[in-house]
Formats: sequence, C-alpha cells, structure tokens
Amino acid sequence: MKKKIETVQTLLDALTYITKFRGDIIVVKYGGSAQTSDSLKEKFAQDIALLKAVGMKPVVVHGGGKSITSLLDELNIKSEFIDGQRVTSKEAMRVVEMVLSGEINKNIVSLLNSYEAKAIGISGKDANFIKAIPKDEGRFGYTGIIEEINPSIVFNILDDGFVPVIAPIATASKLNHPGFNINADLAASKIAIALKARKVLFLTDTEGVLDRDKKLIKTLTIAKTNELIKEGVISGGMIPKVNAAIEALKGGVKKAHIIDGRLEHSLLLEILTSSGIGTCIEL
Amino acid sequence: MKKKIETVQTLLDALTYITKFRGDIIVVKYGGSAQTSDSLKEKFAQDIALLKAVGMKPVVVHGGGKSITSLLDELNIKSEFIDGQRVTSKEAMRVVEMVLSGEINKNIVSLLNSYEAKAIGISGKDANFIKAIPKDEGRFGYTGIIEEINPSIVFNILDDGFVPVIAPIATASKLNHPGFNINADLAASKIAIALKARKVLFLTDTEGVLDRDKKLIKTLTIAKTNELIKEGVISGGMIPKVNAAIEALKGGVKKAHIIDGRLEHSLLLEILTSSGIGTCIEL
Amino acid sequence: MKKKIETVQTLLDALTYITKFRGDIIVVKYGGSAQTSDSLKEKFAQDIALLKAVGMKPVVVHGGGKSITSLLDELNIKSEFIDGQRVTSKEAMRVVEMVLSGEINKNIVSLLNSYEAKAIGISGKDANFIKAIPKDEGRFGYTGIIEEINPSIVFNILDDGFVPVIAPIATASKLNHPGFNINADLAASKIAIALKARKVLFLTDTEGVLDRDKKLIKTLTIAKTNELIKEGVISGGMIPKVNAAIEALKGGVKKAHIIDGRLEHSLLLEILTSSGIGTCIEL
Amino acid sequence: MKKKIETVQTLLDALTYITKFRGDIIVVKYGGSAQTSDSLKEKFAQDIALLKAVGMKPVVVHGGGKSITSLLDELNIKSEFIDGQRVTSKEAMRVVEMVLSGEINKNIVSLLNSYEAKAIGISGKDANFIKAIPKDEGRFGYTGIIEEINPSIVFNILDDGFVPVIAPIATASKLNHPGFNINADLAASKIAIALKARKVLFLTDTEGVLDRDKKLIKTLTIAKTNELIKEGVISGGMIPKVNAAIEALKGGVKKAHIIDGRLEHSLLLEILTSSGIGTCIEL
Amino acid sequence: MKKKIETVQTLLDALTYITKFRGDIIVVKYGGSAQTSDSLKEKFAQDIALLKAVGMKPVVVHGGGKSITSLLDELNIKSEFIDGQRVTSKEAMRVVEMVLSGEINKNIVSLLNSYEAKAIGISGKDANFIKAIPKDEGRFGYTGIIEEINPSIVFNILDDGFVPVIAPIATASKLNHPGFNINADLAASKIAIALKARKVLFLTDTEGVLDRDKKLIKTLTIAKTNELIKEGVISGGMIPKVNAAIEALKGGVKKAHIIDGRLEHSLLLEILTSSGIGTCIEL
Amino acid sequence: MKKKIETVQTLLDALTYITKFRGDIIVVKYGGSAQTSDSLKEKFAQDIALLKAVGMKPVVVHGGGKSITSLLDELNIKSEFIDGQRVTSKEAMRVVEMVLSGEINKNIVSLLNSYEAKAIGISGKDANFIKAIPKDEGRFGYTGIIEEINPSIVFNILDDGFVPVIAPIATASKLNHPGFNINADLAASKIAIALKARKVLFLTDTEGVLDRDKKLIKTLTIAKTNELIKEGVISGGMIPKVNAAIEALKGGVKKAHIIDGRLEHSLLLEILTSSGIGTCIEL
Repeated sequence: MKKKIETVQTLLDALTYITKFRGDIIVVKYGGSAQTSDSLKEKFAQDIALLKAVGMKPVVVHGGGKSITSLLDELNIKSEFIDGQRVTSKEAMRVVEMVLSGEINKNIVSLLNSYEAKAIGISGKDANFIKAIPKDEGRFGYTGIIEEINPSIVFNILDDGFVPVIAPIATASKLNHPGFNINADLAASKIAIALKARKVLFLTDTEGVLDRDKKLIKTLTIAKTNELIKEGVISGGMIPKVNAAIEALKGGVKKAHIIDGRLEHSLLLEILTSSGIGTCIEL
Repeated sequence: MKKKIETVQTLLDALTYITKFRGDIIVVKYGGSAQTSDSLKEKFAQDIALLKAVGMKPVVVHGGGKSITSLLDELNIKSEFIDGQRVTSKEAMRVVEMVLSGEINKNIVSLLNSYEAKAIGISGKDANFIKAIPKDEGRFGYTGIIEEINPSIVFNILDDGFVPVIAPIATASKLNHPGFNINADLAASKIAIALKARKVLFLTDTEGVLDRDKKLIKTLTIAKTNELIKEGVISGGMIPKVNAAIEALKGGVKKAHIIDGRLEHSLLLEILTSSGIGTCIEL
Repeated sequence: MKKKIETVQTLLDALTYITKFRGDIIVVKYGGSAQTSDSLKEKFAQDIALLKAVGMKPVVVHGGGKSITSLLDELNIKSEFIDGQRVTSKEAMRVVEMVLSGEINKNIVSLLNSYEAKAIGISGKDANFIKAIPKDEGRFGYTGIIEEINPSIVFNILDDGFVPVIAPIATASKLNHPGFNINADLAASKIAIALKARKVLFLTDTEGVLDRDKKLIKTLTIAKTNELIKEGVISGGMIPKVNAAIEALKGGVKKAHIIDGRLEHSLLLEILTSSGIGTCIEL
Repeated sequence: MKKKIETVQTLLDALTYITKFRGDIIVVKYGGSAQTSDSLKEKFAQDIALLKAVGMKPVVVHGGGKSITSLLDELNIKSEFIDGQRVTSKEAMRVVEMVLSGEINKNIVSLLNSYEAKAIGISGKDANFIKAIPKDEGRFGYTGIIEEINPSIVFNILDDGFVPVIAPIATASKLNHPGFNINADLAASKIAIALKARKVLFLTDTEGVLDRDKKLIKTLTIAKTNELIKEGVISGGMIPKVNAAIEALKGGVKKAHIIDGRLEHSLLLEILTSSGIGTCIEL
Repeated sequence: MKKKIETVQTLLDALTYITKFRGDIIVVKYGGSAQTSDSLKEKFAQDIALLKAVGMKPVVVHGGGKSITSLLDELNIKSEFIDGQRVTSKEAMRVVEMVLSGEINKNIVSLLNSYEAKAIGISGKDANFIKAIPKDEGRFGYTGIIEEINPSIVFNILDDGFVPVIAPIATASKLNHPGFNINADLAASKIAIALKARKVLFLTDTEGVLDRDKKLIKTLTIAKTNELIKEGVISGGMIPKVNAAIEALKGGVKKAHIIDGRLEHSLLLEILTSSGIGTCIEL
Repeated sequence: MKKKIETVQTLLDALTYITKFRGDIIVVKYGGSAQTSDSLKEKFAQDIALLKAVGMKPVVVHGGGKSITSLLDELNIKSEFIDGQRVTSKEAMRVVEMVLSGEINKNIVSLLNSYEAKAIGISGKDANFIKAIPKDEGRFGYTGIIEEINPSIVFNILDDGFVPVIAPIATASKLNHPGFNINADLAASKIAIALKARKVLFLTDTEGVLDRDKKLIKTLTIAKTNELIKEGVISGGMIPKVNAAIEALKGGVKKAHIIDGRLEHSLLLEILTSSGIGTCIEL
C-alpha cells in the first residue's frame, strides 16, 4: 500500500511536469560519460525518445572532447595554447569539423534513430544557421564566438517531427573560410535562447554544483551562483558550465540544470520529478 | 538510491502508457463511492484532468443511483418491479431525467470545471445522440435499450477541447415522447464502441473481479469470464458489470477494466502502471 | 392577379430580410403559451428550423415558470418572499436546476430535433459558460445576477451547425456551490450581448407593448419607453420585459422585439415581414 | 388576419424553396420583352440579385435577337436562308459577335451591377470555355453546335461571388477562325448540364406551354411533351424551346421551366412559390 | 566556343531577370503593327505565354484604333472634333464598345488561347472594375477619364491562372448610361498602378524615344523626359505615350518601357536581356 | 541584328526548358574538377542557385575521392584490394565518414550558401534515410549497396526551400554499426529514382561519351550504350558512369546526362539549351 502511495505521488508529479512542458523545447548539452559508455548512451537515447513521445521537443547539442584530441595526435597536429586554452589552427579546424560533424554527430543520430527518436544531424554551417566571429580578435585562431543564430532550420526539423542533433561548428559567411570551432556549452545556451527553449540541461561527470562540504546544491539563483564563484566554492571546470547556464537564463530560458550524466535516466529524473537529481539554476 | 530506481521504473512505465494512449478515447463509467465521497470526487476530477492534459481523451458516463430513489420517495411515486427490476413509469421517467440530466450531470460538470478539465454535459437527447427502443417490448415501461448512437456531437465536444459528461437518457425520436432511461454500464459500453474508444473503465465499490478465495483476479479473457459466471464465482451485481465489459470488447474496444472506485487515484494507477489495481478483461 | 402582387410583395420583403440577417445570431427568449401549447410548440420549432435553414443562427433561452412552482409544491418546499420576489433557498435551487436543465431544456431540445433543427441543450454551468454572483448581496439566496459570460461554447455549437438551447442557470465557480438561478429575460439579453446578436425577441402572452388605449405600439425608442413607464402606461409584468430589452440595446444588440407568442408563426412574421406583429424597440 | 395567414403561407413556401435550392446553380435564359422593357429589366435584375442574396447561384445566358438583325441591316449585310434559318456568313459572324459579346453582354452586366448583383460577362471564347463545330456540316456557315464545355471558368466566377453572364459565342480552337454563333436556348441547356445546374428557366414572351384550349399547362413530363408536339398542340416557336428544355432534363438538370418574361418578378414567382407561374417540365 | 560563351551570358542574364520578376505583374499595352500583322501577333502571343510560363503575370490592355474608325464609316456615323480630338457621341460610343469589347478583345483572347496562355477578356464594366467620369466636363461626350479602379477581379483572374485581356471601356455606375471610352495608354498606366505592377510596356510602331539625331535613347528619367518635351525633341504622338509612362511611374510602377512592336519578340528582348531593345523610363 | 536573332533563339529555348522543368527535381552528381577548382566551384554554385531560382529543385550528391585517400595515408591506414576495388575496413570507414559527412559535405553547403542557394547537408544516416547491406556478402567490408531509400527527409528539405546536399553514407539500422560507404554515382541514381527526379546529371572530367573517333556522342539509348560497351568503345572509368545512368533510367528517371564538369556553367548549358554540351542517355 505504501508503494502504491509512492507510485501515485510519482505519477501526479510526472503528469504535472508533462502537462507543463508539453510542446516546449528542451535543449540538452550531451557530453562526458553519457556520450562514451554504451550503457549510458542507450539510456540517454531512451530518455530523449520518451520526452519526445510525451510531447516535449528535445534538441541535442554535443561536444567532441577526446575524439578530437586523439585524431589530432594521430595526425601529429601540434596545438599551441594561450592561458591553457587551445588555439584552433587551420589544420586543427579541419580535424575538429570532421570529428564533430562527420563522426560524433552521425553517431548520435544513429543512436537516436535506433530508439524511435528519428534524428537529423546538422552543424551551424547548414543553412548558415550559426554565424560566428573570431574569439578575442583572432588570438585563438579558428575558435569563434557566436554572433547570430537563425533558428528557422531547427524549427523546420522539429515541425517535421525529428530530433535536431547539432554540432557546434559555425559559419563565417565568407567564401573559402573553414568556419569556426565553438564551445559546446556556450553553443547550447545560445541555441536555447534562439529557440526560446524552456530549459537547458548540461550533462556532466559530476553530481552538480557542490557546496563547501561537497554536498549537492539543489537550487541556485544567478546572484547566489556568482557569490559562490567569488568565494571559490565553484571552481575549475564547473565555472564555464555555470557561466553558460547564467548566459541562457539572462537570454530568457526559464531554468538551467547541471546534472549527473553518469547516473542512468538522469534526464527523466531531473525533468519529471519534483525532487530532481542535480542543480537547477534560476533567475 | 533504491527509491530512485523505483521512481525511474514508474516513470518509464507511465511514459510508455502515455505514449501508447496519446489521442485515444477512454470511456469512464463513473458511479458508486467515487461519485458520493467529497474527497474521492476531487481525486477523480484530478485524474480526469491529468489524463486529458497528457493527451488522452476521457469521456465520462454517469449513473444516478440513490438520488433517483430518494426523489421518487419524496414525491411518493411508487415503483412496480418485475423480476426485481424497476419498471420506469411515465411519472418516474420525468424524475429520472431531472435527476440525471439536471442534477447529477451538472454537478459532475461543475466538479471537472473546478479542476481545469473544462466539461460539457449532455444527454442522449442532445442532437438525438442516443436512440433507444423499449426493453423487452415495453414490459419495463420507459426503460430502454440502445438502438443507435450517432457520436458526432461527442467528437465535436472532444475536438473543441472539452470533457463530455453523458447522462444515460435516450431519445425515442418521436414527438412528445418522454425518452428512455438507460442502464449506465451498458450505455458506457455502447458509447465506447461508437467512439472507437481504446478502453472502458467501470468504477465500482469492489476491488474488481474476485476468485473463489476472494482474491483479486488481475486479468481475464471473455472465455474465462463466462466460465467463472457459470461456476458461480462471479455472481450478483458483478454479473451485469462483466457483461457490459464483454459487450464493449465484442464491439471492438481493446480493454475493459473493473476497478475500485473507493481507492484514491484508482484511474491513474490502472491506466498508467503496468501492475494496475483492478481486473482487466481482454478478448 | 392581386394575390400575385401581394405574394411578390411578401417575397421581396422576406428576401430582403433574409439577405440582411444572413449569418446573424438571433436570440429568442422562449416562454409562455408558446412553450406549453402543443400546437404552438410545433409552430415555434418549425420557425426556428426555417430561420436556421435560410442562414440565420437562432439561439433559444428558456425559462421554467410553472413547472418549478409545481415541483416545489409537490415536494413541500416553502418559499420566502421579499418585495414579492421569491428567495431561492438551497433546497429550491436543486429543484430549479433539475426542472430547468433536466426537464424543460431537454424537452425543447427534443422538440427542435423533431423539426430538423438539431439542438444541443446546455446550462451556464457547462464549460463555466455563465458566471454569476448573488443578487442584492444574497438577500435572495441562490438567485443570482450575471457577472460574466464566456460565449465560446455557444459559438462552437453554432459552428457545428446546432441550435443552442440554454437553461438560465449560472455557475458560482466555487467547488460544491449549487450555482445560481437567473432571470430568463435578463439571461437572454446578456447572452445576446455576449454573442453580439443582431436581435433579441421575447415571446410573451401579450400582443406587445400597448398604448393608453390598449392598442399595440409598433416601434419604440429607449427614451419613449422610459417615458411610458414613468407615465404608468407600461406597467406590471411588462416592466421587467422592456427593461431586459433596453439592457440588450444598451449592450449593442440592434433591435429588441416583444411579440405575441400566442400567435402561430409569430417569429417568422416579426422577423421576415416589414409590418411585423409586435413591438420593436430600438436605441 | 386572413392576410396574415396568407403571408405566413407564402413565407413557409418560400423558405422551404430557399432551403432546398441553397447553393444550387440556376441557369436563366434571358431574352424577349424582359430584355427590352426598361421596367422589366429592372425587375429581372432585382430577382437575380435576391436569388443570389439568399444563397442560390444564378447564371445568365442571353441571346441577341433584334439588335443583330438591325445592325446587319445598317451595314447592308444580306443574309441567305435555308429552311427559314439564317446562314451566318463571315461578315455576319463579326456583327453577331460584336453585338452579343460587345453590346448586349456588357449591358446586362451593367444592369446587374446596378442591383448589387456584381456580374462578369464572358463568351465561349474566354478560356476556350465553349467549343463548337459547324452545324449540319457547314451548311449554315458559322452557325455552330456545341461540342464541349469546360465549365471551370464559370465555377471560378461563381466562387469569386459574381453572376456569370454568358454570350452564346463559341470558339473553334483554331487560329484565326472567327468562332461560332450558337442558339441561345440550346447554349443555356448545355451550360446547365455542364454546371450540374438544379434548374434551367427560359424567359419567353408567352405564358408557358398552352393546351388545346389555350390554357396554361402547369407541369409536363418529357413523354407528355413529345405527345403534345406530335399532336400539334405544341407548335411553332415553342418547339425549339421545349426541345432545349428536354435536352437539359436528359443531361441531368432536375427541372426546366418555360415562363412568362412579360410578367414582373416572374423568376421569383416561379422559383419561390408552390403554385409557380409557368410550365415546369420534368423527367 | 565563342558562341557558347554568348549563350551562357544570355542565359545568366535571362535567369537573373526571371528570378527578379517571378510573381510580378507586367502590364502590356498592346497596339499598332503587333496587333495587326498575323506574324507579329503570333510572336506576341508566344512571348506572353512564355513570360507567364516562367512565373510572371502578364496583363494585356488593348486599344482599337482603325477598326473603330472603319465601322463608324461603314455606319456613316460622323464625328465632331475639338482640338483635333474626337468627341464620342452616344452613337459612336455604341460602336466603340462593340468593337473593343466584342471584336478585338475576343480576338486577342482567342489568339492567346491558341498559345497555351489561357486568357479571359473583360472590360471596365465587368464587376464595375473601372469607373470613369466625363473628360473636360463633358466637352468630349462619352470620352472619359478614369476615376477609380477596383482591381480585385483582375487579381481573381490572375489567381485562377489566366491572362486578363482588358478593353479600355469604363462604367459610369449609372443605370442606362452607355459607359465611357478611355484612352488605352492611360488605361494601361492606371491599371498598372492599381495592380501594383512591376513594369508597364507600351508596344508602338517606333523604335522608342529618339534623340535629336534620331538615335534610340536607352534610358530616361522623368526629369530628362520632361526636358526633351520642352526642347521639342519628343513631339507629336510620342508625347501622350511618355506622359502615360510618367503617370505610371509617379503612381509607383518601377519602370515604363516604350518598345518597338514591329520587331519580333520585342517583349522578350526588353524584359529578359540587359541591353533591352527600346526606351526604359525610370523615376 | 544577327546577334539579336541568336539571343531570341537562346531565350525561346531556355524559356521552354524552364517551363518544362518547373517544379521538377534534378539530381546532380558533383565530383571531379568541378569540385576542386575554385573557379569551377563558384560557377557550379551559381548554376545551382539559378536553376533553383527559376523553379527547379536541384539535389546535390557528392563523392569524396582524393580527400579520403589522402587522410587514410596520413593516418597510415593500409587498404586491401580485391579485383582492384578497395575493401573498406572499420578503421577506413571512420575516415570515409568523417571526410564525406564532416568535411566535403559541409564545404559544399558553405559554397552554395554563399550563392544564395541555401543548403542543408545530410548523409544517409540522418533520419535513417538510406539503408544499405554489405556488397558481395561482405567481401568489401563496409562498402555497401543500397537496399532502401526513404526520401521524405529530402522532400521536407526541398519543401522548406533548401538545396539538399547528400553524402553517400548509409545506415545499417543496427546499434553500434559504423554504417556503409556507398558509391556516389550509384547513390545519385538511386536517390534520383526515389525522388522521382526528372533528370540525373553526372559531372565528370571528360567531354561525355566518345565514339570510336573520340568524338562526343550527343544522345544514346540504353540499347546503343550496351552495344558500345560490348564493342569496347565505352571502357574504363566510363563504364560505371553509364551503368549508373542506365540504372536511373530503368528506375523511371526520364534522362541521364554525362557532362563535362571542366567546362564553366556546363549545368546551365546542358539543361537549358537544345544543343546541350554532353551526352544524354534515354530509355
């Protein structure tokens, strides 16, 4: 009987969220273990398929991570670094694009297709969808920052009933220019803004944002987040994540979530339960 | 952690059913305690609202039960009985219609309206929606059996986004005829058939169909049900219920459920969990 | 030949009015003898069917009159009176609703259905269509005055090709509240305003508004009507009628007619002939 | 009071016919006095406007009669005759077309425009709408018989809300061919068939078809009509009229009427009263 | 090879113009030799058909010229002249209309029909499309100047996929008025304005506007054109042409062209080549 | 003047073809010099943009050629060969996909975007658009042959107004399978069939099919082509091209063209001139 009450509670919760998010666009930044473990990949595909089946409109933005580095190594392309950040040379840019648009993007498309979430993969070059300019006046080579997003192609894909899978490559709108390499977290935020998405979720390899005692913080405001950065509680690789989250919130996205991609079905748990499983940041 | 796994299981279950029943018509025969207890009424309204919100199309068919008897008594209208079944006299018919179409129907409409499941109440007389003829060549007076259902008015109400609430009164298609009093369980079955409903559920004041040891039987076929009737395991008031269920199944409805209306949120539990809570009868 | 000229004149007249009122909503307050005499009922149904067939959109609002009183008597429900007006107690309210929504409303629906004017009966509770508040701060119990009308359900019924038949019961938008009893004349006026009706017609048991010499006045303005009230020429039961008419005109309805429901086909004669048969009040 | 009863009867009659013919195409062959008397012309235009206003779709086919003869005379173009029928020479054909398409057609268009029946005039050459071949292998010169009608242009005009006014000129579908002169009665019948018209009416300068005692025959069948021709009761100029009528009926038009164009509003009287005023021929 | 390069150049040119004018309305004033030579007529029809086939919307406005004069002569209708301009008497007006609407208009319609450019001929009387008032307070009789154009009938014809062919006759919007005779060049300009046409082209029997040395001027502005008139370089019959052109430009038409109708396919050459063949006047 | 006549001839020709191919799908296999020379690339993009602008629907299918080989070399991936054909190992397949879907596909998309022919790049994995099975029972590793094409995604892209650019990679419809490498010529043919294309054109680095004397053959039938193969006149690399062409013709494509991609604007010249510039093969 107690189990029945819990089941009812889970159902009431989930139905409420399903009703609330019906027809809404949900941008998911896909990366980390969830992108590499075979078992987690399948759970992820299943979650995307179910969210879509109950009426939401998931959009996947992915990074490339280790595959890019390993192909650069295989090809003996050396990278220069400024302040610890890689400078994308022309040679490297070719590799970045091949890996992101040609390998990883199509792998995710195939994965989702297997789970009845028919997907179409695009990069920011398709229909000149994402336009970028060089970061820091070109100090980082072909690493770019987004200048403009024309989301109509993504709306078309959604209207046709497919899940858009987006590689974070941008066009330079110049003939014979190789295009730009874009940070995937920032791309997800900018795309979420352009699509007027309800939520953006970042799948990471941590539990979420942790407090001084390394315990998960369930909810944060922008102000509180900035405070934690200043205090050094949020540090390292988490800083760009929360900054991307804040960017999205300032652009009109209602909620940004940093969740644990190592946990099975973390997407469902975060979106459809009132307790959630990661950190939710709001205005 | 164990709780999270259970939650995920409940979610996967529910999402699968929601996907499966999206856009499907679900006919609910509403009666018994669920119709009289204030607390159960609210849970019922909440369930209907949620089923509708996630994309199903619930249709409510109600009976009148005790209210009719009590108004007949107040008015000193005596009833004749044949084989234990009430004969509906012309005087009684007026009372039956006033209670069903004028009191109970509008009460349910108001109840659902309060829970964001905007409802419209009709009887079989509206648009001549349900046509009947006298039962047993008139031995039961104005008690009728359904001859024809023209469901287009119900489809219109569904298309306009409302929950149809139906009083089991039928038209005789004759000028100045008072119409017919219809058994609500049979009306629910016939309406489910005419609407090509996916499911019909009967809310009762029992756990469901019980076996010889008074334990709930989870699933039944028509054949097995008939056997249990013959053996006397199914008896009394349960017989007309299962007969109505069988009628619906023979007319093309996929599943008929007899569930416990005394249990809170029994509709959600039966429709959205794989274990269910009552008896499900299939072809 | 003279007859042919008259026929031509009648046709030219009628065609002009049909052209003028094509697609317009015409609200008819149905009551009095036209609602009780079998022969007049049929003529009324025929008129509604023909008006609809030639392109107008009739909407019927009905009262309950004697049926309510007689059922209250049968049930020994005593009524308190203030200034000659009945106070609707909770017990009485139940009777009012049963008679209006359950008996009379469905009778009219059946009547119209027999004359190819397919009808759907609703009360103000359906889809929370009419919201009311207590009259005079509750001195009259559950007698209400209309606060808000959301006409979309009536437009839906009209768009689906049916004649809406409306019982003057309103919702209180509160859980477990029995709703309100509304004056049918005023309900007709308010509904005509909300529907942006072209005309509202009140079927009465008099010839129309009479002058000092008891002769029918064909046309009146609001100003002239008020004058006649002040002078005592309009008195008694006619005062609430003309007030309802004036209310409609002030709300934007073009013309309000008070006509003799005892005359066969009075609706056709008033709407489709230039001489008319009753009193027409304009701004 | 007696007058009111007659008015009601006329209204009930007319409303029934209006309902019956709503949306139906009614082809009117316009000619004779109705086309020449200024007073009758206005009545005709008024009738067409009213029929259109109440939902029918009138289509006017006209002849040219005396205007053609008089212009031929003015231009000293002599005509050859075979069996009393004029042979259309090339010179005459030019005159026929100028008078029909350039003078009479535009006069009727202007007339109808003045009565709020916005009209568009076309001939069979527009969009190659009527194709003809020479009559009797060319013995009658450019007098043609209709081979094919492509009515889509007329449907377009009707859909755009205009009254089509058609000059009985046909195309030969050959470059530099002057086209064909077509008998207007037969053109009306063929057009009525091609448009799947409900009725075709021929305005003539007689009362209708008369019996042996010169009294009007109200209704005829094709069989009876042929009998009357054989017996010589129908003779002279009435024969081609009834033959055109029979042609239309055989092609699927429900009723063909031969009516007195000299009578004011004869169209209304024939179409909207049960007694009618001319002769109605049915299958 | 050189030929291939020229072909490529012609194609690139033409494709650019086709793309630019896709969906645009092009008004062509048709007259002169192009209207009388059998060979030129066919080339004209072919050009109109091709312009239409590649997506433009040609509209033809025609004059009547010599045919009117010759029929007036045949009928011995004498004309009065004021300042060298013909006064249109009532008798002459009948002839003008018969020739324009009945003869020439239908000839052009038949011609275009033969070249798969399905055409519909109308005059300003159809649907009261062009309204005029007397020129110079009636000094020129039934010669009128355009007061108002309601282009919806022309848009309907274009939307239905036909080429509109327009006779320059206008309605007076008065019962029994014969209408007005309109200058065809001015009619073309006014129609182009009312249709928001991209271009208006005047087919003439000259090369275009010539300079002092009788050499063709390729492009002109309104200012330069007025200068040339003042200087007497533009004179005689060319003055009304350029004035009609200027009228169109002032009304919003982008370009007006005066081209040589004696040259085969002059329409194609002017519209689809960058060099053009006549004079193009712009704001 | 002679030049004008030639221009007119070119225009008449081109307009006829434009009319004929309006709305038709034209599949272009893009490869060879046209894909590598910067100048030819721009001409190609211009041609595609113009064909699209005048109403055709170009679809580009590309190969990868030398880029694949060079990346394989850089990565030291050795290839096995059977009968001179490369066997695609799993390692090679990764490179093939990265180059085709990630590098070349997006380069072409960017190129077309620069010329106002907004393009979207996809591979056969997107929406599981092209399904393949191993060639010769797997002897060639991950080289596949097309089993099924579901063209709806390409129709969506065309309907949205974009040029589809297709990489010849197919899905295996199996989880974790790397997919298949498909011959681009055959892919173009199969896609042309699935899209019910009017034409398929193969851009090559030869003039077209040559006869025994090395002179271009303008038109061929399937029969004649097979004969030339048997006689050895068609040989070497031209054999798979003509076989792909024949495959398309047998599948319902009207014409297959083998044209010289080294010639500027060869697409326009072949499609829009009656002389053409390459070899056209028909049934």
